[in-house]
Amino acid sequence: MSIVVQKYGGSSVADAARIVNVARRIVDTYEQGHSVCAVVSARGDTTDELLALAYEISPKPPEREMDMLLTTGERVSCALLAMAIDRLGKEAVSYTGSQAGIITDTVHGKARILDIRAFRVEEALAAGKIVLVAGFQGVSTAKEVTTLGRGGSDTTAVALAHSLGADVCEIYTDVEGVYTANPSLVARARKIDAISYDEMLEMAASGAQVLALRSVEYARKYRIPIHVRSSFAEADGTWVREEGDAMDVEQQLEQPIIRAVTYTTDEAKVTVRHVPDRPGVAARVFSALAEAHVNVDTIIQNTSESGHSDISCTIPAEDMPSADKALRRIVEELGALSYDSDDSVAKVSIVGAGMRTHPGVAATMFQTLADRGINLDMISTSPIKISCVISKDRVDESVRALHTVFGLDDDCIYPETADRERC
Amino acid sequence: MSIVVQKYGGSSVADAARIVNVARRIVDTYEQGHSVCAVVSARGDTTDELLALAYEISPKPPEREMDMLLTTGERVSCALLAMAIDRLGKEAVSYTGSQAGIITDTVHGKARILDIRAFRVEEALAAGKIVLVAGFQGVSTAKEVTTLGRGGSDTTAVALAHSLGADVCEIYTDVEGVYTANPSLVARARKIDAISYDEMLEMAASGAQVLALRSVEYARKYRIPIHVRSSFAEADGTWVREEGDAMDVEQQLEQPIIRAVTYTTDEAKVTVRHVPDRPGVAARVFSALAEAHVNVDTIIQNTSESGHSDISCTIPAEDMPSADKALRRIVEELGALSYDSDDSVAKVSIVGAGMRTHPGVAATMFQTLADRGINLDMISTSPIKISCVISKDRVDESVRALHTVFGLDDDCIYPETADRERC
Repeated sequence: MSIVVQKYGGSSVADAARIVNVARRIVDTYEQGHSVCAVVSARGDTTDELLALAYEISPKPPEREMDMLLTTGERVSCALLAMAIDRLGKEAVSYTGSQAGIITDTVHGKARILDIRAFRVEEALAAGKIVLVAGFQGVSTAKEVTTLGRGGSDTTAVALAHSLGADVCEIYTDVEGVYTANPSLVARARKIDAISYDEMLEMAASGAQVLALRSVEYARKYRIPIHVRSSFAEADGTWVREEGDAMDVEQQLEQPIIRAVTYTTDEAKVTVRHVPDRPGVAARVFSALAEAHVNVDTIIQNTSESGHSDISCTIPAEDMPSADKALRRIVEELGALSYDSDDSVAKVSIVGAGMRTHPGVAATMFQTLADRGINLDMISTSPIKISCVISKDRVDESVRALHTVFGLDDDCIYPETADRERC
Repeated sequence: MSIVVQKYGGSSVADAARIVNVARRIVDTYEQGHSVCAVVSARGDTTDELLALAYEISPKPPEREMDMLLTTGERVSCALLAMAIDRLGKEAVSYTGSQAGIITDTVHGKARILDIRAFRVEEALAAGKIVLVAGFQGVSTAKEVTTLGRGGSDTTAVALAHSLGADVCEIYTDVEGVYTANPSLVARARKIDAISYDEMLEMAASGAQVLALRSVEYARKYRIPIHVRSSFAEADGTWVREEGDAMDVEQQLEQPIIRAVTYTTDEAKVTVRHVPDRPGVAARVFSALAEAHVNVDTIIQNTSESGHSDISCTIPAEDMPSADKALRRIVEELGALSYDSDDSVAKVSIVGAGMRTHPGVAATMFQTLADRGINLDMISTSPIKISCVISKDRVDESVRALHTVFGLDDDCIYPETADRERC
């Protein structure tokens, strides 16, 4: 019997009616002859409500207690879902992350999974039960309750799929799959039928919200096929898997150069000015930021003038307070002039494995933006991705223009209707 | 260093302001040089909200999942309280019932505590930390999350007080202590300064809500002094302890015959009519009810007429559906005429160790009710308690009359004000 791991996000279990809907989907899968293990997120806004409660009491709540607090959200939705499945006449059992054997390190708030000891899950599946696991959480090697941080439930699902030897990890969400661009920004965005791990990884890293970066990394490492789909529709969504595994020949033949256009607006640009131009200086700046747990993204170093240069980089806007402290110290230590930060920036990226074999993609991107008078602040590239840092107020326009230029527009405004045929 | 176990009820932690108030009380006790372990209930109406969610999904949710769901309530209030204490500059750590080593049997919804393995609590206390434990819950011998049923947090607190060798178990609530009668019914009710385990046990069993029956049984068995007091006031509340341990001599000299008047309105009376009057028949009726997990209270058997009699008893109104099934079977099996039930009854009780040495107490009670034309349906007694089953609509009047007749009235309407002196 094949094992299917499913993951349901917060919007899929937001109220009683949706929970019953999810229960039906799970029972359907079970009745098709699969063993089902479903990972469940907290209902709708539960996590935000719990956070608000905590901050009402303390501006800086201890992280251990924050984890004790937040993990209740998934536990509630898991138990409710088990009740709904029971009512449909199937036996279900819900487990906390700890009971499901999700073993993590001891970093509260953003723990990493070290091991999966899913004995109880395996036993329950073997006994013919449907298993529900609270996502986003685990138990640390110090026996403390931990949370996995943003997108943690996706990671729980992929890790369990690997540990249980599942055939597929289905990620249910409130959109129909992975799109060529954010559909709420680009009306002509199309759903992508299949995408490689590498492309999905670049998309998640450059702003696509549908899958958490860590879960894609995990799936890529262990080659777990992911199927991203809507919990409100029956149609296939987007398959994430090995390059070349595409579902149909037609799609392979038509492999696009660019798969998607992504963007982020939650970054800030910091610049350390007039840094002495000697070996080890850049290393010193970025090791200081790393020590402050600041994730640095794009980096640029201006040409040296009279033995000095400027060093700029982008960081997550939320890391700005930590970065601020580290940079203040660095400016003094290196005898730099000053540093400044700019949170009016955004990053627009194009992602596609096809660009490896198609020269001129970068030029097309830069020209498209230049034609619109959009200034490029910084540029960073990987073999399958090009990112430009631009002004935040030009993002929407840039994304739409790039989506058109690289041939991603669907001619139909509602591309996912069943009777779609290039209308 | 002495150990103090405190328990805070749901109303004491209902919102952020109250949680901060409780945190201050705990820190005060800590700063007086005590080790503090506090057991915390779910905030205000949390449990009712979770129950409503569950019943929205299923009319009969599986009990295991109900326990998974409900136990999140105490976990939330515990974590929030830990944050509030942290903000006051003291180190606090919250534990679930499972983490605190509350080991129970496997009966979901009303598990009994089998053992306390509070190693983590002991270690944390020894390290100078304030420990918070989620009340009402434990982990079963089958490693499942369980709840202890109504009043479970009181029981958690008393059991932990015993296990930790605490000097006292303080039960914080929204009233000032144990009263001679329900103060919302009897304006002249007085707070009781000290009461014996036996009396408190009879009071809890006959309707006093302030302490859960099981927690009193536990305290009595292990001689744990309980101090019931208000979380909104500083004054002493009610001490529950060994008879003769009364706080001051004056009180001993003035020991009242009757300690309190209690009542319940959530009982139903069932009568099996025209039962053959032969040995073993009553046993058969009550073993059938016991098998259906119905708690039988007062029992009465009418005088036999022509080889047949009627058997009546009172049961909790909520057990009526289970009783119904059992009695239907019994009527058939015994060849009885029929059975009927009456939920318009109530039970009024007087409790007091003093009645052991004062004859005529029962007569006074019956006469008081007779004078008001109140009919006695059933009577049951223990050495320190007399209960009468009467019509539900005469309860308020009966309680007030008995409170006056037995000299319990305070002359002052607000007896608990600090400047009270028999005004």
